[in-house]
Amino acid sequence: MESYLVSEFQRQAETRRAPAYQHLRRTLQHAIENGEFTPGQALPGERELGKLLALSRVTVRKALAGLVADGLLVQRHGAGTFVAERIVKSFSKLTSFTDDLRARGLDPKSVFLERGVGEVTPEEAMALNLSPGSQVVRYYRLRTAGDQPLALERTAVPQSVLADPAMVGNSLYEAFAACGIRPARALQRLRAIAFDAEQARLMQLPEGSPGLFIERRTFLDDGRVVEFTRSFYRGDAYDFVAELHTE
Amino acid sequence: MESYLVSEFQRQAETRRAPAYQHLRRTLQHAIENGEFTPGQALPGERELGKLLALSRVTVRKALAGLVADGLLVQRHGAGTFVAERIVKSFSKLTSFTDDLRARGLDPKSVFLERGVGEVTPEEAMALNLSPGSQVVRYYRLRTAGDQPLALERTAVPQSVLADPAMVGNSLYEAFAACGIRPARALQRLRAIAFDAEQARLMQLPEGSPGLFIERRTFLDDGRVVEFTRSFYRGDAYDFVAELHTE
Repeated sequence: MESYLVSEFQRQAETRRAPAYQHLRRTLQHAIENGEFTPGQALPGERELGKLLALSRVTVRKALAGLVADGLLVQRHGAGTFVAERIVKSFSKLTSFTDDLRARGLDPKSVFLERGVGEVTPEEAMALNLSPGSQVVRYYRLRTAGDQPLALERTAVPQSVLADPAMVGNSLYEAFAACGIRPARALQRLRAIAFDAEQARLMQLPEGSPGLFIERRTFLDDGRVVEFTRSFYRGDAYDFVAELHTE
Repeated sequence: MESYLVSEFQRQAETRRAPAYQHLRRTLQHAIENGEFTPGQALPGERELGKLLALSRVTVRKALAGLVADGLLVQRHGAGTFVAERIVKSFSKLTSFTDDLRARGLDPKSVFLERGVGEVTPEEAMALNLSPGSQVVRYYRLRTAGDQPLALERTAVPQSVLADPAMVGNSLYEAFAACGIRPARALQRLRAIAFDAEQARLMQLPEGSPGLFIERRTFLDDGRVVEFTRSFYRGDAYDFVAELHTE
């Protein structure tokens, strides 16, 4: 790990103008994304890292803090800094399931349990600001990484946004990008639930296992709602993080 | 409800210069905080509200949207708008447990399970940026509203910040305010858990009931950490909401 860090850090520092902490942050981020560092692996201590890369401890700490906030690193029990094992998802940045997992060097997949077109339900009409009788494209997907089930997701998209259900392969956000649709913001609501029998079977978990229910409405810059998704995430795999501010 | 709304809205509009939607928002907020409107109660429809107060539907919608985002109102199944029954907590604004519940007209209390001073554990030292051997004030509290248990909270505060454990009555944030300590931001991490036997007993829930584990580190403007709290919230009582943005 040490020699990789030294050479990659120097490469970063040579190719970009940026503060040193950003070089270190990028170096570590790439190492995690490329699987050079693996989940659970310990990083050298702050002092050693500083010595290794000729950086002050303040600089090292700043780089590590950024990656802890992004959920790529965790700091534990005075024991040091480790590559995150749980999947840590931001509750303030809008990111896609697929990108989150790829950023961890994992291989996200979608297993389609249902896919089709139909008339909006009252709940979907309300969430998507559609008139009764409008058509929506619907997906019910099991989201996996390395064949491990991580989430169940039910998504409805106005057919005026995505014409054909077949446009979504693994990732809804890739399909959006391919159509030039750029989500700008989302309203998200989260609660703790216990998986029912059917969900538990699909997730390969015991019935009653803890999970997170997350409802998301995603908006374009012009206020149009392009997505209404209700997800059930494994409680034992996901952490959500955010920075809170006083008003 | 209608006559209250009309007279309070007019009072708001007379005493403050602000856009009409803000008058309506404030009127509704006060009505909920003062218990004039009760959890689960239906609001008049958007069109009726507009007619009643001589406001456009756009203005009414804007006022309601703000209160939905704050968690004071919920919109359901095309059925209309209701005063929120679940406690909806922001995952982006730093607020106190006590203030959240008072804003809903509830009566929050703290039952102290433990309270004292001791030497930091390695985990607390890491979270609070303290040296080994430092002293912390610790609270383990059952948080209730109207005698209903809502959360279990373990808090550690550097003794350099709060000298005496007796300074905290119901609310840590009130004790902070009394000492002139103004939290500026917090890093928060959340996951789904199942209550163990001891937690379930304290919370008066069946063992294995779903809950949210939330870890919070609270900072002053100068970067000092003043609070490290690990909370367990009832899954059936709390929703967390936030607005997410693309980078």
